[in-house]
Amino acid sequence: MNPKLDLVLERTIDVKPELVWRAWTTPDYVKKWFTPAPWKTVECEIDLRPGGRFFTVMESPEGQKFPNTGCFLEVATNRKLVWTDALEPGYRPSARKLGADVPFFLTAIVTIEPHGMVGTKYTATAIHATEEGRVKHEEMGFHHGWGAALDQLVALAKTM
Amino acid sequence: MNPKLDLVLERTIDVKPELVWRAWTTPDYVKKWFTPAPWKTVECEIDLRPGGRFFTVMESPEGQKFPNTGCFLEVATNRKLVWTDALEPGYRPSARKLGADVPFFLTAIVTIEPHGMVGTKYTATAIHATEEGRVKHEEMGFHHGWGAALDQLVALAKTM
Repeated sequence: MNPKLDLVLERTIDVKPELVWRAWTTPDYVKKWFTPAPWKTVECEIDLRPGGRFFTVMESPEGQKFPNTGCFLEVATNRKLVWTDALEPGYRPSARKLGADVPFFLTAIVTIEPHGMVGTKYTATAIHATEEGRVKHEEMGFHHGWGAALDQLVALAKTM
Repeated sequence: MNPKLDLVLERTIDVKPELVWRAWTTPDYVKKWFTPAPWKTVECEIDLRPGGRFFTVMESPEGQKFPNTGCFLEVATNRKLVWTDALEPGYRPSARKLGADVPFFLTAIVTIEPHGMVGTKYTATAIHATEEGRVKHEEMGFHHGWGAALDQLVALAKTM
């Protein structure tokens, strides 16, 4: 973890690692928690293997849609999930260019560790190329946004 | 394989898969074959695991040095090696910007399959983000360069 380049959400939650994993890797669940309300995730496709596709479409409250295509890098069931939007599926370098629509590229490392009898130590690290990218992501509300999404994940997991 | 975006070197060679793997994954061997003469690979560091560092320094005949930092993505001993320079070690998106010094990003997929008793079917695929990148790489001499490097790898493997 490099504090100049990375952002981290670390929290202990009272749901089991297996449920966190299912929430992260099941498209119908991802649609329910991935984007803090009133934003929505209206589409999700997951090909759960290294090199596989991680596709989502987020929708703003005004109805504008934002598709995101990423690539899974590590898939360790119930323990660790890594994906990036700097690569497209099959590990192809992304053709998107940094700019207004793409303020930064991102790799996300999600680790899920058992905590106590029924809990999870959840750590989500967002890794950026540059300090500029990290700052932009922070200013866009990383901590609030990823935290609120995790609240939604926990609430969802308790219904599974 | 997408012919608009990808370049492929496929060849049957008369050295065993295990030797091809050793040539690709041992820094002192990489320095001996990776760059077609009269270019040289003067430094090489390998951290052979997904997310690990693949670092080389190439040197032109005039003595100019070109460092390259990449990240391993898949490491399947004696079978498949995948790395990219679109990510830095630890899967961090690369901070390099496309331009004169970085004409394209690249993911390389090397597959090594047994062929007959002592041979290997060797396939190296260079995957690019855009057709423009593929064309630049082709014009820079992909086919001759990767082919000449493979000749050097085969000659080296026969001395192992």
